[in-house]
Amino acid sequence: MNKQELYANILKKRSFLCVGLDTDLAKIPPHLLEEADPLFSFNKAIIDATAKLCVAYKPNLAFYECYGVNGWMALEKTVRYIRSNYPDQFIIADAKRGDIGNTSAMYAASFFEDLPFDAVTVAPYMGEDSVSPFLTYPDKWVILLALTSNKGSGDFQLLKDASGEQLYEKVLKTSQKWASDDQLMYVVGATQGERFAEVRKLVPDHFLLVPGVGAQGGSLADVVKYGMNSTCGLLVNSSRQILYADNGLHFAEKAGAEAFMVQQEMSGYLPD
Amino acid sequence: MNKQELYANILKKRSFLCVGLDTDLAKIPPHLLEEADPLFSFNKAIIDATAKLCVAYKPNLAFYECYGVNGWMALEKTVRYIRSNYPDQFIIADAKRGDIGNTSAMYAASFFEDLPFDAVTVAPYMGEDSVSPFLTYPDKWVILLALTSNKGSGDFQLLKDASGEQLYEKVLKTSQKWASDDQLMYVVGATQGERFAEVRKLVPDHFLLVPGVGAQGGSLADVVKYGMNSTCGLLVNSSRQILYADNGLHFAEKAGAEAFMVQQEMSGYLPD
Repeated sequence: MNKQELYANILKKRSFLCVGLDTDLAKIPPHLLEEADPLFSFNKAIIDATAKLCVAYKPNLAFYECYGVNGWMALEKTVRYIRSNYPDQFIIADAKRGDIGNTSAMYAASFFEDLPFDAVTVAPYMGEDSVSPFLTYPDKWVILLALTSNKGSGDFQLLKDASGEQLYEKVLKTSQKWASDDQLMYVVGATQGERFAEVRKLVPDHFLLVPGVGAQGGSLADVVKYGMNSTCGLLVNSSRQILYADNGLHFAEKAGAEAFMVQQEMSGYLPD
Repeated sequence: MNKQELYANILKKRSFLCVGLDTDLAKIPPHLLEEADPLFSFNKAIIDATAKLCVAYKPNLAFYECYGVNGWMALEKTVRYIRSNYPDQFIIADAKRGDIGNTSAMYAASFFEDLPFDAVTVAPYMGEDSVSPFLTYPDKWVILLALTSNKGSGDFQLLKDASGEQLYEKVLKTSQKWASDDQLMYVVGATQGERFAEVRKLVPDHFLLVPGVGAQGGSLADVVKYGMNSTCGLLVNSSRQILYADNGLHFAEKAGAEAFMVQQEMSGYLPD
């Protein structure tokens, strides 16, 4: 999917919501545990209840890997289900990969050839040749970690060089030499408040993937205030708040209602 | 496995070799492709041929994930095979993970509970709370990326702050507050030459996992010269040079011969 298609979907659905599929067997409705594939059963119900209200899904790979082979089967089924039934969804592998060139090439093949993902999150620490193998696929995206939503983001991302430039700023600047805003997005946490404005100065045209709204405490209004650009430029992720809105028989309905509330707020921020 | 046990194994085997299981179906002997599980068949043969000569195995997860569910099954079988048949091997998940706390906790459960890994490689970009969930398991290890072996290592790892301290040095210093050298190692690429001496000033007692000898061009003699400490302090990885020494019927024998040459050189560097 290219940038124009993504923005068209946002306008059509009046939503820039990304639903994070951080599916945890300890948190899903207990009655699903009797199913043959509880992870997939839960995901399918959530997807069917939210697909009209969001433009992207983001399975967090840790939540599947931790169940080994069964987890990978559920992940594959989930991604293929989205692609077949909701072809306009942008599907993000939240994997935070990044390794030497030949290894990153294997990850890229995994996500972009074997599986129908549109994008993968990548950590920048190892530099250009750890990122570039993901960029050889037209209309596929790298979403590079820039300024994350967690407390530890301050440990290294805010380190300043002699000129006062912080590491995350260096990442934003340097990585723009590797690809254009047609293939590169950045992760910027909703909890970063006014630093969003600084990010936008450096990457005015890029899409940002924004975790941290909801359970992590970030505010959607602030994200929009500091982060929205002329093509929206935001994919705001919500995971726990939507997935675990309820854990009874009507969990999917409640998840849909929660997504609807977010979508309604988002609609108000988008141009008519 | 704790540090004393690891050092005892090194002295017993007179080797600090880690065999990297970067198993690639395009490179393994063609006759294995007829087997039901070529990845595992290849790994089993390589492991049986090298286990006497090395102290650690390091499956690179990208090479398994790229085959989806079948790849994960081969990975699980491989790790369990090593643990059952060669219980003194130190098994490293080369995964380069690192995410917000609840996600890192899922990865930790995956590698340390569901699978019998001893260690996992982690990227430092997201800071303390992305690393600490891995440190809650006694005798399990985090191997933090510090100074990697690839060209892109220069993009961010060598950035200097106002006092001249480089990012990788900051990572070495800061992370020592999170755990001791009984649970923390660092990745330092063999291609970094004299920077090894700088690393050793900051982390004199830690084990270092050293990729980049062999196919990537690093020298074992240099690594030993700058990196060895009083408890060896080195796990030197070799992948392609050993795995793909030959791709005929006697590939495992040739891999064993290649590992033997490395072990012999290592033996000369260890105290009597």
